[in-house]
Amino acid sequence: MRFRQATAVSSIEGSPGRHTAEILDGWDIGGNANGGYLLAIAARAMAEHVGRPDAATISAHYLSPGKPGAVTIDTTTVKEGRRFATATGSMTSAESGKPILQVLGAFTDLSQASGPELVDASPPDLPPVEDCIVMGQGDTGFAPSFFRSVDIRLHPADANFHIEPSGNARVRGWFRFFDDEPIDAIALTQVVDALPPTAFNLNLPIAWVPTVELTAHIRAIPVPGWLRCDFRTHFVTGGFLEEDGRIWDESGRMVAQSRQLALIPQQQP
Amino acid sequence: MRFRQATAVSSIEGSPGRHTAEILDGWDIGGNANGGYLLAIAARAMAEHVGRPDAATISAHYLSPGKPGAVTIDTTTVKEGRRFATATGSMTSAESGKPILQVLGAFTDLSQASGPELVDASPPDLPPVEDCIVMGQGDTGFAPSFFRSVDIRLHPADANFHIEPSGNARVRGWFRFFDDEPIDAIALTQVVDALPPTAFNLNLPIAWVPTVELTAHIRAIPVPGWLRCDFRTHFVTGGFLEEDGRIWDESGRMVAQSRQLALIPQQQP
Repeated sequence: MRFRQATAVSSIEGSPGRHTAEILDGWDIGGNANGGYLLAIAARAMAEHVGRPDAATISAHYLSPGKPGAVTIDTTTVKEGRRFATATGSMTSAESGKPILQVLGAFTDLSQASGPELVDASPPDLPPVEDCIVMGQGDTGFAPSFFRSVDIRLHPADANFHIEPSGNARVRGWFRFFDDEPIDAIALTQVVDALPPTAFNLNLPIAWVPTVELTAHIRAIPVPGWLRCDFRTHFVTGGFLEEDGRIWDESGRMVAQSRQLALIPQQQP
Repeated sequence: MRFRQATAVSSIEGSPGRHTAEILDGWDIGGNANGGYLLAIAARAMAEHVGRPDAATISAHYLSPGKPGAVTIDTTTVKEGRRFATATGSMTSAESGKPILQVLGAFTDLSQASGPELVDASPPDLPPVEDCIVMGQGDTGFAPSFFRSVDIRLHPADANFHIEPSGNARVRGWFRFFDDEPIDAIALTQVVDALPPTAFNLNLPIAWVPTVELTAHIRAIPVPGWLRCDFRTHFVTGGFLEEDGRIWDESGRMVAQSRQLALIPQQQP
């Protein structure tokens, strides 16, 4: 239960809505915690606060890098409705008091979800897991510690970005936790920001694409097994880009959809 | 300046961050204010509060219907950064105190935006404005007062939903304000929720699709003229659907991208 433990939160007696957590070493990209990992910690605190398990829709603004160490998550309930509880979450560094993340989400119980099914899209075509490229083992020349905490296998056509970008702003791959740790709605907020940036496959001098904001819709709880992930970018304009994600489970169901707004860092002249 | 006046906000002396505004008659669908109109009021209060004109990314959770009458918008600055100011906004009914909208956004000055341009998508193909279907004049059998406050012309293939849904969850059309009122970043938060729901073109017994959450990325300020709007839905599952929007200006630039999570109301048994 590596992910469950790495995103554990504790409520503080006598301080309603306040939680503590620890950003762990090993979930970072060059010292800064992965954005999905940070979001999952905040989402867990918010879900516990409102007493509903699943974030149906959650938006996070990234305010400063999350460094390993203690954080505080202050949660407030905005509205307690029949179907949704809407809450805010603010993650700050316990040491510096610096804001890291500001979050707004609607929580529900997705096991109660029902309605007509009309789907006009298909999961990405991926080679078998064993024919894909293991992240985090140096195969891609891009081996931040985060990629040793989760099990990601990239589509070979999208994985060669450090040597020869594909020219197509797309990254596809398989995702699972090690030891087949189950993936719930909180874990899906991790999955939607786990693969390398699509922009790495563009012929642009980009070392990193900091996320301004990420919104995830959790549409269902996945069946056990690998997830198929598909991230695309259509618009690089004015120093911004969006990255759209779709996550599918092994039953062929689209379980999460995401979009983030990210920055193309300006080149130093 | 009909829209500018309809979304005017006033700050309250002695109450930092507090604004008042009026939800006007005539911007509603059957008595409930249009969601984009509500968001634009909140966005204006937030932009004025942080002193930056443009919402780069803004997310709103819809908590209860906005009825005509006075509202209060409480804004707080979460972070004042070099490039962005991040703020929250809470709109409540002045009469009942009921929460209407909870908003989180990052504000900037888009006139400073620059960077590489790589676009992998095209504006929707629309017949000339004069060959499209005027909303709000009974042509479509769907004439809420909102559609007399803005000038919308639907693609004929998407406009016949009250008689014969196209079967394709897509709605395309032209948008402008009357009297060529200029469209800025605040106005774009209106545009991304202005056309009839895509779901009306599905063969489902749907009278309305209440928005749970809407996120808009404002990517540029449009040149004067008509906007091309394109809204699509790919996933109707578990009582939810997403609606993805792209707004293009007359120069062919994509100026705003949006996604909302909405509900398929359960049929009464």
